[in-house]
Parts: sequence; structure tokens; C-alpha cells
Amino acid sequence: MSRAVVLLSGGLDSTTLLAHALRDGFEAYAMTFRYGQRHASEIDAARRIAARYEVRDHIIVDVDLRTFGGSALTSDIEVPKDRDVYGTGNGIPITYVPARNTIFLSFALAWAEVLAAGDIFIGVNALDYSGYPDCRPEYIAAFERMANLATRGGVERTNEIHIRTPLIDLTKAQIIQQGLALGVDYSLTQSCYDPDPTGAACGHCDACQLRLKGFSEAGVIDPAPYVHG
Amino acid sequence: MSRAVVLLSGGLDSTTLLAHALRDGFEAYAMTFRYGQRHASEIDAARRIAARYEVRDHIIVDVDLRTFGGSALTSDIEVPKDRDVYGTGNGIPITYVPARNTIFLSFALAWAEVLAAGDIFIGVNALDYSGYPDCRPEYIAAFERMANLATRGGVERTNEIHIRTPLIDLTKAQIIQQGLALGVDYSLTQSCYDPDPTGAACGHCDACQLRLKGFSEAGVIDPAPYVHG
Repeated sequence: MSRAVVLLSGGLDSTTLLAHALRDGFEAYAMTFRYGQRHASEIDAARRIAARYEVRDHIIVDVDLRTFGGSALTSDIEVPKDRDVYGTGNGIPITYVPARNTIFLSFALAWAEVLAAGDIFIGVNALDYSGYPDCRPEYIAAFERMANLATRGGVERTNEIHIRTPLIDLTKAQIIQQGLALGVDYSLTQSCYDPDPTGAACGHCDACQLRLKGFSEAGVIDPAPYVHG
Repeated sequence: MSRAVVLLSGGLDSTTLLAHALRDGFEAYAMTFRYGQRHASEIDAARRIAARYEVRDHIIVDVDLRTFGGSALTSDIEVPKDRDVYGTGNGIPITYVPARNTIFLSFALAWAEVLAAGDIFIGVNALDYSGYPDCRPEYIAAFERMANLATRGGVERTNEIHIRTPLIDLTKAQIIQQGLALGVDYSLTQSCYDPDPTGAACGHCDACQLRLKGFSEAGVIDPAPYVHG
């Protein structure tokens, strides 16, 4: 059985991703980051999901991105609410965290090297988050190429690294439909940038809007708790 | 004045690197990692050096690489002593830390993005550490390419990232000679993988052997403290 490192945030996308990796026959090693984000209840969601799926191992890595500032997710900038997330010309969203996926993939690469895992799953999506430079296929390809020059296994060709992005071209509705077909229980997942202390989603931040629109288009009721439910 | 992020470990190479960046006219932002290494006195050396050079800012980033194991520098494997570090066929040294430079450069990239710094200095050296895959020019070039696809400034071409490796082709003796010409005080630096509690170097690990050989070839006495005189 091949090992894979799966980046699991506790959200809708990464939970669907984990279901994909398991369906494909990988032995899953889940990695979650605690990175000074406001939405720490995501971490609890990740633990619940890792337990439900009986992953081989689950590690929580502390990474303090607040050191650098620069994003509404990790600093004191207000999380934007009810804005038109589908409008054109928005550019890169204010919730962008500098080099986040690069940092996350680098840790996943370190763990993959130790585990002799050749596959790293990351739930990036180029459609719903087109403003994030590090969610695009050309970025992922460049990271994969770099990874195979960075590691023992890549250089010696004993453990070539593949970055797997099965969700990259899917709409949110398609992700939900695939996940439901794979038996994902979305009541366990947490997407909101600004949940209340119980973990209930705000329903108004960019992430909630994209999620709710996805469920609506998929013709399914979102089973997760919302503040204004 | 252009800003540069300089990866400063507190060792001989990175201190010479900082002197290079300042000589080249950059405003230096020093970044040091506390990564569960045995030789934490390196951190104290980095602080002394950052203070001496009056860098614009110095941050210490906590990264627990022990989570992953896999190296004598971060786990309970014994640091090898008095082995033939110049012998052929050694392959990748046991002190190799999985994906270390990739993780370090990723954090430097995040800070560079926030600072709008276009340059990242890293003291990798392909000659003395030919066994480390992430010290080779082709790795550095691949990281730089990835970085410019990962970031706002790279994609929008407002802040292209350059990874600077002025030491990559130099012997240890040449690094020392350049550093002395730039006025580096090597008594401040710390290279040993296994120093005593006062920070005195062991004189026998791979890093000490390479350093002592470098000073010997440069015709200079190493001013740093050693346990065995």
C-alpha cells in the first residue's frame, strides 16, 4: 500500500480530498497546520475527520504565520463580509496568506521524505479561488519539479514526489457531489473564516458564501451549523 | 534601498552571507530558525551577529522539525565524529534534515512578500556539502521559479523574487577569506553540530572538521572557542 501525505484543514475541500486519497488506495498520513488563524475550530474539525477516517497518523504542525502579518486570516484586519466574491477585478483576496501553500507543501515534503511517501494531496482549487497565485496548476507543477530536486528520493529516483490536486478543476458544487458519492459527512467540516466560539459558521464571509453557493448548486442542504441558521 | 531577507543561522557561512548582502547595499532583514536542533547556541550566535550588524529587523521562527525525525541534527541519532567527510561514496550525510532548505526558503518567501523584498540570501554551498540535494544550483533555480509563480509580486511582476547564493561555488577557505576582507568577526559565529553548554565547539563533528580545514587552508587561526583547545 502506497503512503500519501494529505493536507487536511478540516474544511470541505480537504475532507473530500482525503476521501479521494483513500478511494485511490493510499495509506493516508494527515497533516494539519495551526497557523495563528482566527478559525482555530478548523483544527477540531480536522481531528474529528482524521478520527472518523482512521488515517494511519495525524500530526498538527504549529506554524506562526502571524510573525509576517499581511492577511486578514492571521492579523487584525477585519474579515470582509457579504462582498461580491464573484465580481471581476477583485484581484488577490485580502484573506490571502503570504506563501501559505508553499510553506504547507514544504512541511508535507519533509514528512513525505521521512515516510518514503511519494504522493502529497492538497485541496487547491483554481476555479473558486482564482485570485490566489498558489492555487494554479503552473504553481503546483513548479513545486513538484522543485521537490524532486530538493530531496534524496527525488534526486536518487527512489521516491519521486507527485503533488496530487484532484479538486483543482472542479466547481464547489462538483466537489460536493463527488464527496457525497464518496460518503463524506459534511456536517463534520468547517469552512468559515470567522466562526463563533461553538464553531458555527458566520454565513457571510467569502468562504461561507462559496460553500453555500456550492451546496445550493449541488441541490443539497449544507448539514454544517450556521450562526444565522 | 532594496530590502533583502537573509537567512542567518549564526554560523560561518551565513554570517559571511550577511556581510555580502550589506556590502551589496541591501537593507537586511535577518531570519533565524529554531528547529529543534541540538545546537541551540547557534541561536545566541545569530542574535549577537544581527545586533553587531544592526540589521533592520531580526525574527526567530519556531519550526519543530523533530515532528518528522529522520536526521541526527533533530532526533536521537548520534552525531558522527571524526569520520572522513572528504571520502567518496558517503552519499547524503546523516545530518541531513528533510526538506530543510525548502522549509526555510518558504518562510523567507512569506516574509519577503510581506516586506516587498525582492531578494532572499541563503548561504548554501555546493562544494563542501555536495551530499545535500537542496544545496545545488539546480535546486535553487527551481525554487526561484516556483517562488515567482507562488506570490502576488512574482505573478504581477511587481516584486520578482531572486534567490541569492553568493557562497555556492566557494570553498570554505575562500568563504573565510572573503569574510575577513569584509571585516567579519568569526569569533561571533557558531558552526558545531554538538557544542558544549557554553557554546564551545566539539572540534570533531563534520561541521567542525570542515570549518577547521577551511581556516587551515586560509592560513588563519579560527578565533571561535573549542572544547579541546
